[in-house]
Amino acid sequence: MAKKRIVSGMRPTGRMHLGHLHGALLNWKDLQDEWDCFFFIADWHALTSEYANPAIIKQTTYEIIADWISVGLDPEKCTFFIQSEVKEHAELHLILSMITPLPWLERNPTYKEQLKELTQKDLHTYGFLGYPVLQAADILMYKANGVPVGEDQAPHVELTREIARRFNYLYKTQVFPVPDVILTPTSKLLGIDRRKMSKSYGNAIYLTDPPGEVEKKVSQMITDPQRKRKTDPGDPDICNVYFYHEIYTDPGKVSEIAASCRAARIGCVECKKIMAQSLIKGLEPIREKRRELGAHMDRVKEIMVAGNRRARAIAESTMEEVRQAIKMPSDL
Amino acid sequence: MAKKRIVSGMRPTGRMHLGHLHGALLNWKDLQDEWDCFFFIADWHALTSEYANPAIIKQTTYEIIADWISVGLDPEKCTFFIQSEVKEHAELHLILSMITPLPWLERNPTYKEQLKELTQKDLHTYGFLGYPVLQAADILMYKANGVPVGEDQAPHVELTREIARRFNYLYKTQVFPVPDVILTPTSKLLGIDRRKMSKSYGNAIYLTDPPGEVEKKVSQMITDPQRKRKTDPGDPDICNVYFYHEIYTDPGKVSEIAASCRAARIGCVECKKIMAQSLIKGLEPIREKRRELGAHMDRVKEIMVAGNRRARAIAESTMEEVRQAIKMPSDL
Repeated sequence: MAKKRIVSGMRPTGRMHLGHLHGALLNWKDLQDEWDCFFFIADWHALTSEYANPAIIKQTTYEIIADWISVGLDPEKCTFFIQSEVKEHAELHLILSMITPLPWLERNPTYKEQLKELTQKDLHTYGFLGYPVLQAADILMYKANGVPVGEDQAPHVELTREIARRFNYLYKTQVFPVPDVILTPTSKLLGIDRRKMSKSYGNAIYLTDPPGEVEKKVSQMITDPQRKRKTDPGDPDICNVYFYHEIYTDPGKVSEIAASCRAARIGCVECKKIMAQSLIKGLEPIREKRRELGAHMDRVKEIMVAGNRRARAIAESTMEEVRQAIKMPSDL
Repeated sequence: MAKKRIVSGMRPTGRMHLGHLHGALLNWKDLQDEWDCFFFIADWHALTSEYANPAIIKQTTYEIIADWISVGLDPEKCTFFIQSEVKEHAELHLILSMITPLPWLERNPTYKEQLKELTQKDLHTYGFLGYPVLQAADILMYKANGVPVGEDQAPHVELTREIARRFNYLYKTQVFPVPDVILTPTSKLLGIDRRKMSKSYGNAIYLTDPPGEVEKKVSQMITDPQRKRKTDPGDPDICNVYFYHEIYTDPGKVSEIAASCRAARIGCVECKKIMAQSLIKGLEPIREKRRELGAHMDRVKEIMVAGNRRARAIAESTMEEVRQAIKMPSDL
């Protein structure tokens, strides 16, 4: 029996960091054996916020794919492609824009939130409002059965589901399956300043940070804010550094650290040093693979070209069905 | 010296009527000697209002092209093409959507007016709001120097000019010339009910209406509403039938009719009969040419295919420049 398909993408606005790793990539890796995976670089999406400075987009695209592979995503199991290399996404986006009610977009909670938060960029554009329509095109193009996303993106997938249903209803067709949300468990790991890890906050630890850089960043991490002196007992349950220990440090050692922290036997400086070494060790296999790939970026490019071709073939066939459904067959 | 270029399009929601002829087509015909003309069937645009019933779009596309040629538009001088056959329009639309401020669209007077008027259709869609962005893509794709439009469409071209300037400014480029509005004089001819002639009002006289149909429609025309009885003097200056006389009846006869009307020597019934015969005679060469073409629709199709190809070549080259400008070169 053919595997069911999932589609997910990332905006190429910078290299991969631990937020990506634990918020998405490791989950993708878990899914790749059971699903037919399509993972893409959402470069047109990146334009919604980076339109005034798009150079970053092309620069990072291949770096990101190399990061993905280093993490363990297997090009034999996954199709990697670049959104803008499959022009059909633009056509489907245009067609779906005609049937998407404006209030569905205006009410989108992520839209409202981002407008409020990213005040240093002018996001009051037509394209930014239509972000979820382009996302619907990305997903429906491949007739995805599932979409692995974090909780914050779930409302977008809901919109995709609505748009799929509306298309099928209006054109009396079953072209688009209604995809399920596959919720990625939210990672507890935060950035070094305790906010969500994000390139734009400058609080990220990158998969490819050299050990010295990791040590420096970890040493700056905010721990339990209630613990002012080393002699105060700490609370690992609310400590970001401890969340990293839980993932990267040996389990036996982790419970020891928790106990020592609660008893004020270990200070934050020492605790961070231990964690930094665990983290460096944990990331070493990724960094090693990444170094290897970095010396052969032509191989990464080949993988990408093959993926683009595979994606394009499916997109062309979906668009033929879409054009038939809306009675605008191509005359080519 | 190369001719400067103009681009204009029509939505394929029905056959051509006298409103099209005097509001656009005769103007296009006048322009075709001096300009490099690109005229297109705006079938994706038609989806903004016909999304729920798109069958009409494909049905009428070839009929309209045949109508255009019958009117005297010369395929040797003009490039006719179908918007949806040049997929690059969708890509440019998507890219321009990222740089188009939402308030530019929300303030668009045509948008507000149409929302108010076309209440039988649900136009509160994302695509309908973005109509002028797609129009900008249509025009800028061919680096048009001018856009022949009626007064009601002039605000849209203004938006195209703004979008061109914003693109050039953001990406420090001169890819897009800022096109001029070439204002088509507004035709005085109204529909048979004295409203603007439009298929959706059911008040149109079509270029291909047979003589009996023209006679019937003309007989129903509303004349000077103040003239209740044949013995009342009429006012040709406000009479829609008289406007038709001015165009279709011999000038000598026209002044005689005006005088007789003012003196109540001629009744509306008789006046309309004269006008109907002038109109039938005036439309005969168009109808004749149209009959001829109707028997050779494969020729029309060939013209279209050649036009699509010509348009596509330019579109591909423009998009290469656009992708370079926004630093998203294609990897194909």
